[in-house]
Amino acid sequence: MGQYRKQRTDGRSVTLEVSAGLAAANDRFREASTIERTLALVGDRWTILVLRAAFRGIRRFDDFCADLGIARPILTARLRKLVDAGLMTKELYQQHPPRYDYKLTTAGTALSPAIVALVRWGDEHLSSTRPSTILVHAPCGTELEQGFWCVTCATTFGPGAIRGVPPEPDR
Amino acid sequence: MGQYRKQRTDGRSVTLEVSAGLAAANDRFREASTIERTLALVGDRWTILVLRAAFRGIRRFDDFCADLGIARPILTARLRKLVDAGLMTKELYQQHPPRYDYKLTTAGTALSPAIVALVRWGDEHLSSTRPSTILVHAPCGTELEQGFWCVTCATTFGPGAIRGVPPEPDR
Repeated sequence: MGQYRKQRTDGRSVTLEVSAGLAAANDRFREASTIERTLALVGDRWTILVLRAAFRGIRRFDDFCADLGIARPILTARLRKLVDAGLMTKELYQQHPPRYDYKLTTAGTALSPAIVALVRWGDEHLSSTRPSTILVHAPCGTELEQGFWCVTCATTFGPGAIRGVPPEPDR
Repeated sequence: MGQYRKQRTDGRSVTLEVSAGLAAANDRFREASTIERTLALVGDRWTILVLRAAFRGIRRFDDFCADLGIARPILTARLRKLVDAGLMTKELYQQHPPRYDYKLTTAGTALSPAIVALVRWGDEHLSSTRPSTILVHAPCGTELEQGFWCVTCATTFGPGAIRGVPPEPDR
């Protein structure tokens, strides 16, 4: 943890010696930057709505329009952004006239826990009205819970039982 | 679902008849607005860093400063915002000079799954460098998994097994 690689403005990179404290602060800042970039990508209202519709299984342009009541140019822009970012793929399903399916990639599907968690937190802690929809486990109808899961202990746990450790070195 | 209560600019509210389709689109928009309000509250880099430090158990002003390498005026502003929003409480622990503890409320702690999910998604899908920290279940050291949990079936499941249903009426 004593070295830190920095990109210079001329494009070359240099290795700097830094204290462990500074390096930790730098790591934390990098982590927060990553979150900010994530939010810049998916943090606007319409993008979230498009993703939520895709999580529910909607795939076709006209179905997104009908489901969300979204203007076509806005939908076009949001779908393009999601495809460019690798969160959705666009596939031709009809030649004349050309019509496309939009499907979530693995990366897109992986956003689901974060977005569902934000929706549920906001419903519970910011909204003054009751949510119009609650989310349940489809096979049994039980309201879902969300949390952290340990495969070794086969248990859920809260944030107090989380510890951060350095990753194992490459093998 | 045929009626819709609207707040007028003069403060009175009126009940409108709307089609079920429009009402559903309105519900979706309200849901996305709630997420946007959540992100407006906690979506900036420093607020996320302060929350992450609090999740790790940090409580005192000087400890936040040392851990995050954050300027004191920025930390003061972020802590005030979090206290005002009901995500943290501020308690005097020393009289002379006055010193305060900042503790997460239930609402603040409840944000943890959303923020951890955003961090982990960004680390995996946006970052070009390996994360400096991985999150594990403290008692056993196994990397945590995150997902949806059904208490009835005692199982985790993915977004494909989620269904939205209307909440039960008040009893």
